[in-house]
Amino acid sequence: KDSYKIAVVHGDGIGPEVAGAALEVLQAGVQAGTLQFEEYPAGATHFLETGDSFPASSFEGCRAADAVLHGAAGIPGVVHPDGTEAGLDFTLQLRFKLDLFANVRPIKLYKGVPSPLGRPGPIDYVIVRENSEGLYAARGAGALLREEVAVDTLVQTRKGIERVVRFAFELARTRNGSPKDGRRRVTCCDKANVLRTYAFFRAVFDEVAREYPDIEAEHVLVDAMTVHLINKPSHFDVIVTENMFGDIISDLGAATIGGMGVAPSEEVGAGVGLFQASHGSAPDIAGKGLANPYGTILASTLMLRRLDQRHKDGRLRLGADRIEAAARAGLEDAALRTRDIGGTATTRQVVDALLKLL
Amino acid sequence: KDSYKIAVVHGDGIGPEVAGAALEVLQAGVQAGTLQFEEYPAGATHFLETGDSFPASSFEGCRAADAVLHGAAGIPGVVHPDGTEAGLDFTLQLRFKLDLFANVRPIKLYKGVPSPLGRPGPIDYVIVRENSEGLYAARGAGALLREEVAVDTLVQTRKGIERVVRFAFELARTRNGSPKDGRRRVTCCDKANVLRTYAFFRAVFDEVAREYPDIEAEHVLVDAMTVHLINKPSHFDVIVTENMFGDIISDLGAATIGGMGVAPSEEVGAGVGLFQASHGSAPDIAGKGLANPYGTILASTLMLRRLDQRHKDGRLRLGADRIEAAARAGLEDAALRTRDIGGTATTRQVVDALLKLL
Ligand SMILES: CC(C)[C@H](C(=O)O)[C@@H](O)C(=O)O
Ligand SMILES: CC(C)[C@H](C(=O)O)[C@@H](O)C(=O)O
Repeated sequence: KDSYKIAVVHGDGIGPEVAGAALEVLQAGVQAGTLQFEEYPAGATHFLETGDSFPASSFEGCRAADAVLHGAAGIPGVVHPDGTEAGLDFTLQLRFKLDLFANVRPIKLYKGVPSPLGRPGPIDYVIVRENSEGLYAARGAGALLREEVAVDTLVQTRKGIERVVRFAFELARTRNGSPKDGRRRVTCCDKANVLRTYAFFRAVFDEVAREYPDIEAEHVLVDAMTVHLINKPSHFDVIVTENMFGDIISDLGAATIGGMGVAPSEEVGAGVGLFQASHGSAPDIAGKGLANPYGTILASTLMLRRLDQRHKDGRLRLGADRIEAAARAGLEDAALRTRDIGGTATTRQVVDALLKLL
Repeated sequence: KDSYKIAVVHGDGIGPEVAGAALEVLQAGVQAGTLQFEEYPAGATHFLETGDSFPASSFEGCRAADAVLHGAAGIPGVVHPDGTEAGLDFTLQLRFKLDLFANVRPIKLYKGVPSPLGRPGPIDYVIVRENSEGLYAARGAGALLREEVAVDTLVQTRKGIERVVRFAFELARTRNGSPKDGRRRVTCCDKANVLRTYAFFRAVFDEVAREYPDIEAEHVLVDAMTVHLINKPSHFDVIVTENMFGDIISDLGAATIGGMGVAPSEEVGAGVGLFQASHGSAPDIAGKGLANPYGTILASTLMLRRLDQRHKDGRLRLGADRIEAAARAGLEDAALRTRDIGGTATTRQVVDALLKLL
């Protein structure tokens, strides 16, 4: 393939700032002509302007691309009649319409980035969040009766569990990081002791695990998992879990490595993938040039690697290596850390420094 | 009232050790004759012996008591046909049959207890977990179709939300602890941006909040909450949330104050309440005399205070004050900390020391 089409959606709040930062870095880090960027509108701002949070033309643009790079979305209070947020339609619709079943969130503590944990030790694991069903299957489908009873249904299918668990085991086989004790392992995070859907998740996990005898398989209940992610994060390698639980524990994981600002997120399925930072639109600091661009920049390296995995293109691999090295060097340099990770750098200062490094 | 009937259920694993410890301390700390203890069997061990995890006679004993004190329950692998754990029937059935709608979990960092956070600051808040509906309403009611699809339904009622939110605001009005900035506040933890049940939870929360203009009301999404409980625990005063979310964030909160071993739990409704530590049955250390008894001992002080609130009996108040002071002194003394909180003390050594202090 000559070049790859990247659909770019800036979104709301700090979205344009962090997406813009990632674009500059991608242009400097990847050989010219490799990537072609096309911008599409979506988000809460667009909803306020047009009444449409995610126009069909934007969706078509994303679907036809090789990958989608997103800034961030959402304005608090800009909601649908059922109380859910309009700004989130973009991410949630892409997930469900493109069947992006695996949400991959690497939790890696970079040297120099302050962790809130007293003795974090090395942290380098990946959360694989089931992204196409679970409690999120209820979005838009829940019922509210006479303002008296509300229901949402958690749905878990064998097919849905099998594919995401298999994805997690394949990832454990190939990824570089490994837990402290050197054993490759996949941890199933569930609430099988109480709920049938999670017991089913665990049962299917156990079936799939048998296909991977070279990889240790274990179970941790979601409540206990929050304790382990604080007390022994170095234990983990790959964690696989249901959609809602994945949403919760991936933010917790991000907190331990310096916060949402440095945590990238990748959502993949059979086709095009969605790449963004884990953080939200942070309206309080939007437009001030203070946003932390590292999360989105690291997400763009995930994008390059995923494209390379599919297309075997050295330009992508090289770009990912270079950008990740630059980001790592930036994070190690106290002068290049933004406020959320204990520094004073502006978005612009970070980007300029990374461009120089590239 | 002359005396109060306390139903005691030892349970499994370390259950008998920690319940036994609390009984000794209660007998030493509360004026003789105030409490009458009656023991009832329940749990996974009892299930293995008799096929019944929670005999009707035990249930009747608990219901007829003034309060129920529980050790801990559960043996991994001892499960019902649907994969859920038999040992948990006791707690879950009491919750639902006695309509124990509020699960109160104080998260307090005692001086001397090591927190895994680098700079924890003062931590002293309470999580009020809705305990009668939410995702747990599905327990035993979920469906599994052809081993292909499993469903559980999250149900939230106006009545259920109103009463627990009101409970949280009343607690904020009366409790001693208050956040760093001195403002009383109740935080609603939900996922209103995505799911209708949580949007409904938040809407009802907002309605009830209007009845308490003296108390600050705020919302935090559950994923963001995990970050805040790590980065600014001192901000919180009272947090109210849905059942499943409460299960998750209360373990996370416990982790920040030294772990499940020191975290007490109280479950209350209109009638008798259930008091226990937040931890599980820890089969790995059961019978070794290493269990941390502080959680159950602190739970027994919650029990005394709740009984006093209802019966205005100075003997109960005095007992609670004395036992809590002794527990605090124990925790402050490095020689009286168990292994899970960085010490070397055995259960016996802790109990003997507390008895001496009383
Ligand atoms: C933006 C929102 C819909 C989303 C989610 O709840 O999944 C976010 O919190 C995330 O983790 O990706
Ligand atoms: C023992 C179990 C049923 C219980 C729960 O899931 O509620 C426990 O984790 C808790 O937090 O009380």
